[in-house]
Amino acid sequence: MSNSKETKAKMKALVYHGPGKRAWEDRPKPKIMEATDAIVRITMTTICGTDLHILKGDLPAITDGRILGHEGVGVIEELGKNVHGFHKGDKVLISCITSCGLCSFCRKGMYSHCRIGGWILGYQIDGTQAEYVRIPCADTSLYALPADADEEAATMLSDIFPTGLECGVMNGQVKPGDFVGIVGAGPVGLAALLTAQLYSPAEIVMVDIDDNRLEVARSFGATKVVNSSDGKAVEHTMALTGDAGVDVAIEAVGIGATFDISQSIIAPGGRIANVGVHGKPVEFHIERLWSQNITLTTRLVDTVTTPMLLRIVQSGRLDAKKLVSHRFDLSEIMKAYDTFGNAAKERALKVVLKNSSAS
Amino acid sequence: MSNSKETKAKMKALVYHGPGKRAWEDRPKPKIMEATDAIVRITMTTICGTDLHILKGDLPAITDGRILGHEGVGVIEELGKNVHGFHKGDKVLISCITSCGLCSFCRKGMYSHCRIGGWILGYQIDGTQAEYVRIPCADTSLYALPADADEEAATMLSDIFPTGLECGVMNGQVKPGDFVGIVGAGPVGLAALLTAQLYSPAEIVMVDIDDNRLEVARSFGATKVVNSSDGKAVEHTMALTGDAGVDVAIEAVGIGATFDISQSIIAPGGRIANVGVHGKPVEFHIERLWSQNITLTTRLVDTVTTPMLLRIVQSGRLDAKKLVSHRFDLSEIMKAYDTFGNAAKERALKVVLKNSSAS
Amino acid sequence: MSNSKETKAKMKALVYHGPGKRAWEDRPKPKIMEATDAIVRITMTTICGTDLHILKGDLPAITDGRILGHEGVGVIEELGKNVHGFHKGDKVLISCITSCGLCSFCRKGMYSHCRIGGWILGYQIDGTQAEYVRIPCADTSLYALPADADEEAATMLSDIFPTGLECGVMNGQVKPGDFVGIVGAGPVGLAALLTAQLYSPAEIVMVDIDDNRLEVARSFGATKVVNSSDGKAVEHTMALTGDAGVDVAIEAVGIGATFDISQSIIAPGGRIANVGVHGKPVEFHIERLWSQNITLTTRLVDTVTTPMLLRIVQSGRLDAKKLVSHRFDLSEIMKAYDTFGNAAKERALKVVLKNSSAS
Amino acid sequence: MSNSKETKAKMKALVYHGPGKRAWEDRPKPKIMEATDAIVRITMTTICGTDLHILKGDLPAITDGRILGHEGVGVIEELGKNVHGFHKGDKVLISCITSCGLCSFCRKGMYSHCRIGGWILGYQIDGTQAEYVRIPCADTSLYALPADADEEAATMLSDIFPTGLECGVMNGQVKPGDFVGIVGAGPVGLAALLTAQLYSPAEIVMVDIDDNRLEVARSFGATKVVNSSDGKAVEHTMALTGDAGVDVAIEAVGIGATFDISQSIIAPGGRIANVGVHGKPVEFHIERLWSQNITLTTRLVDTVTTPMLLRIVQSGRLDAKKLVSHRFDLSEIMKAYDTFGNAAKERALKVVLKNSSAS
Repeated sequence: MSNSKETKAKMKALVYHGPGKRAWEDRPKPKIMEATDAIVRITMTTICGTDLHILKGDLPAITDGRILGHEGVGVIEELGKNVHGFHKGDKVLISCITSCGLCSFCRKGMYSHCRIGGWILGYQIDGTQAEYVRIPCADTSLYALPADADEEAATMLSDIFPTGLECGVMNGQVKPGDFVGIVGAGPVGLAALLTAQLYSPAEIVMVDIDDNRLEVARSFGATKVVNSSDGKAVEHTMALTGDAGVDVAIEAVGIGATFDISQSIIAPGGRIANVGVHGKPVEFHIERLWSQNITLTTRLVDTVTTPMLLRIVQSGRLDAKKLVSHRFDLSEIMKAYDTFGNAAKERALKVVLKNSSAS
Repeated sequence: MSNSKETKAKMKALVYHGPGKRAWEDRPKPKIMEATDAIVRITMTTICGTDLHILKGDLPAITDGRILGHEGVGVIEELGKNVHGFHKGDKVLISCITSCGLCSFCRKGMYSHCRIGGWILGYQIDGTQAEYVRIPCADTSLYALPADADEEAATMLSDIFPTGLECGVMNGQVKPGDFVGIVGAGPVGLAALLTAQLYSPAEIVMVDIDDNRLEVARSFGATKVVNSSDGKAVEHTMALTGDAGVDVAIEAVGIGATFDISQSIIAPGGRIANVGVHGKPVEFHIERLWSQNITLTTRLVDTVTTPMLLRIVQSGRLDAKKLVSHRFDLSEIMKAYDTFGNAAKERALKVVLKNSSAS
Repeated sequence: MSNSKETKAKMKALVYHGPGKRAWEDRPKPKIMEATDAIVRITMTTICGTDLHILKGDLPAITDGRILGHEGVGVIEELGKNVHGFHKGDKVLISCITSCGLCSFCRKGMYSHCRIGGWILGYQIDGTQAEYVRIPCADTSLYALPADADEEAATMLSDIFPTGLECGVMNGQVKPGDFVGIVGAGPVGLAALLTAQLYSPAEIVMVDIDDNRLEVARSFGATKVVNSSDGKAVEHTMALTGDAGVDVAIEAVGIGATFDISQSIIAPGGRIANVGVHGKPVEFHIERLWSQNITLTTRLVDTVTTPMLLRIVQSGRLDAKKLVSHRFDLSEIMKAYDTFGNAAKERALKVVLKNSSAS
Repeated sequence: MSNSKETKAKMKALVYHGPGKRAWEDRPKPKIMEATDAIVRITMTTICGTDLHILKGDLPAITDGRILGHEGVGVIEELGKNVHGFHKGDKVLISCITSCGLCSFCRKGMYSHCRIGGWILGYQIDGTQAEYVRIPCADTSLYALPADADEEAATMLSDIFPTGLECGVMNGQVKPGDFVGIVGAGPVGLAALLTAQLYSPAEIVMVDIDDNRLEVARSFGATKVVNSSDGKAVEHTMALTGDAGVDVAIEAVGIGATFDISQSIIAPGGRIANVGVHGKPVEFHIERLWSQNITLTTRLVDTVTTPMLLRIVQSGRLDAKKLVSHRFDLSEIMKAYDTFGNAAKERALKVVLKNSSAS
């Protein structure tokens, strides 16, 4: 392997070529650029809803030629001189957030706003949907995995579970006995559903327009489901709470309509935790909520909970693999994108891509 | 006095008679209705911005004939059989929030949502702008004052200081070293300014359109002031923070323009604490803030901090009287309303009304 | 029934007659003494380890003739004029802590230190091991139960579960992914074990000298067990944590030896939550712990979590009945005390007493 | 200066030579050893009580030849290749705690337990009582100072103020309106006194055996003082609180007697924050405190508050220089040790040493 590395120095990668255009093509294998970098040989990766947003052209900072992807697991291939926590050959989880550990934001646990990192992988620097990836600030952006770790479960810890847990469940301060409403049963809503149960709420009502997804939600632990396609999600949810409203509302879609449901079902003293990525302003009903003692939070995932999630998955208290609905070889990633892009029709949650050439 | 009570049983009161109409007129003296009631002889009261809102007709639950006012201090005149914490003749502070202490909201410290109380004084039941007032749930809605307590300082603890402290400073989680922005230098904004200093922020910038009020703010401890009448409050405030934004933004007006300033000056990880009473929805820039890890709170004052404020005022760490700009006799309350209603022109902050007939 | 009440006005009760002496004998049926009282017809009660302490003479404030017991469920028989939250015939849970809701401690949620209540039932006033009991401050010391509530589960919420949860789990700040050590697998330690799982710790190690109890602990969710009878509990526990120590140590016995284990297994930054009732000072190893960033807490249960626990039990997330090992008729209470007093030999956890004459 | 550096490469330093033995002697100037190191030219340093403990032989990890000192300010002389946050010539504050920013403890804000750092300066590696010092992990162990920063104030932020604030005030959760007791009016007790006022407690009672120090405490803001030399500190303090006890007790000495005062004056629900460095176990009165809902904390300072303290000092809300009682030239450090070692007689608080040869 190290031999081929010297001679070839090429790899396959999923490359962005402007809105709507992606290709699986040859790219130079990445090299160490800073002393704190690591080169990781990808063994598994996945596709995020954000990757679809990028392809739609919604995220302006992307440039033609960028390798996409910010999730995955792999094996350390090469290390910069100043990486002290890993060795060549170590199995690692790649965090979707690059964190230097040293800046004022990192020191406060706000890794998402790291002054040299944050969410840059597969967006401002080349990402993980490739045979190899360069990870800056490796000591604080990679997490050690046991050699026998389940790769599918681990891949789910790069982004989707920390996002559901931090932006939804922890910001929403879910507590034992709470009544929780989650608006949106896509992957991130389902990740919030699964991690909310770590705190033993009494009831979790899941709101979505897709009966298939609601069925999945029920099998994942939702105690009530509401199909909102009749435009009466608020009435239905309020009725389920005896008109008291929910203690925690988690917005997991990112549009005005779902934000509006969230702010309409919240009980006095409740918390609205926004997880969805929004493209437009929303109307906030402060003329009604000003006196309701509510808390509304926003957050880009910091991945501060990654070590906690690794322990929880290892202990068996969270079955992270549940979110995986489709499996492909990494070389089939163009097809995998089609599947994930038609999630409702394909009943897709998360699709994983195994790099069978990695060994 | 007790003699006149028996024979006359009348008193003077400021009575609401429909939008824009108020009168200082005779009313029956209130009587004990429940075993947990107290009758308090008012010695000092004040006028709140909310009283002006009521008079404008903005608050629908008011009815013709209601005695206004929800602030004041006085002396216990009579007690229901089930009031155990007070004796006739005790000097007391009247909380603007009536709290039963027993319901699920009160047990959580959310007195503002007490199932039988909340903000009812001078709105849903007769209030304190009168010679006497009936206070329900007296044990938990009155606070003992030393006989020699300063009445003006105490009157400021009925509503304005708990509101600034709880809805603004505590919800905003002001901490030592923080950069705080307060939008609105009216009485409640100034109360937030004074109580913010209990937590030693490094800087407090005050934003208002009135130079007189900004001058007052500076004398009350604001380290920077911004006159927003040029429409550039955001630019000015950001410049003062080195473009970092403020850690805490306190919205103390209640209109869209000031909410917008608040959400535009907040730093990543910051807290926006809404204090203002809003009559319309606002546009919330979630398309920008979704990733900024911000917390937005609303709150109707719970007055849970009243015991703390009493201790702080007594210790000399807070000079609550500072907010009193004008003094009238209770019998001059019609004129006092005129003064308070022209606050900018009269340079009025809080106007206090002393009941000189009480002794 | 009401007929017999008028004529007889007697009942059976378990009465303390000095150290070591108890009798099941006739006593006058209790009457309403204060307007906030309720008389409850007991349908189920249980015996607490504290009752045994009283009988040993360890608690000085007890007097001859006192009816013991501070746990149970029943039916409202009669209400004082000022009780508003209940009606005659309502099924209720009796909290072990009497709380007025009005004093400064109750207003802070420290019901255990209520100025007129606290733990007084079955100690400073007559208790629940009787056919009837008078409950002061009924509105805030009783909790409504659905008519079809499981009485055994509910009885466990009077004391043992709030104690394990508040003094152990919440004071210990158990979080998802934590490594928790519980020293003592008696009823309160097991209650801590069951409620700790509401917060999804990664591992819970249970330490006890009794293999039977450790077996129970394992079946209740302990992931590791340590028999401490070889005097090497610390070494064993440290080995199980890879010498890192536990994040949370819950002391659930109340003697020096178990306190010492707790302070010896705690990781830097960890929390030691004392639940045990101690009769003697302990040696605190501050010469080692001063620099270890640990937090040590004590607490008499406040029962602030009772509403939460009722919701959790109702939702099925906590099987509170699990702690019931033995069932007796209330008339067999003398025998039930013998069984509970020989807990190790009898393999007793909690013994419940059903009042079959109540209907 | 850079010229002499090349040719001489020697410097003066205060060196430990076994218990009781110290010398001001020539030592090699330190060099960069790791890419994350910085060499700092000391412009001001100070002596800590811990340095005296080292000289007494109380701290076993010290070895002959070690340069003492863990406090100070200086100027960056040389930087390792991987230090990104500083430039040569920058004025810096040296934290007493070396923190890598990358290990699991640093990621949790527990820098004191950093896996490669912690308190090592002047103890396990050479310290700051010298003309130059090597600072490992410079990016996260140094803090930028403005060129015109007051050096005396800044020197007080290396250790004494973070210690008083973090271990005493923040662990004790001092809140507006609290009654605080501080046992011990030495430098660290006085630092707790000054930083407690950042949170506006109603009363602060200072307990000490030295009337001079109590006088200083009073001038620094203590509202009450108790001379404990009559053995009645507990009675006096309780009397001052109306027998309620203090909300927060800060132990700032480190012996059994002062710990005992702290645990005897605490109110139910209160917090005991241990700051003192203890050499022996203490007797903890859990037989009384088990039911008192108290929290006891220990902590080695993490210096997480250093950025906050810098902002507070800069804003003028904390006059850190107040603690400086004596000023010496660095070359007079042997004499300065004598003065500080006779603190009571010399009325010494903190003594600062200015390196006049640095420029």
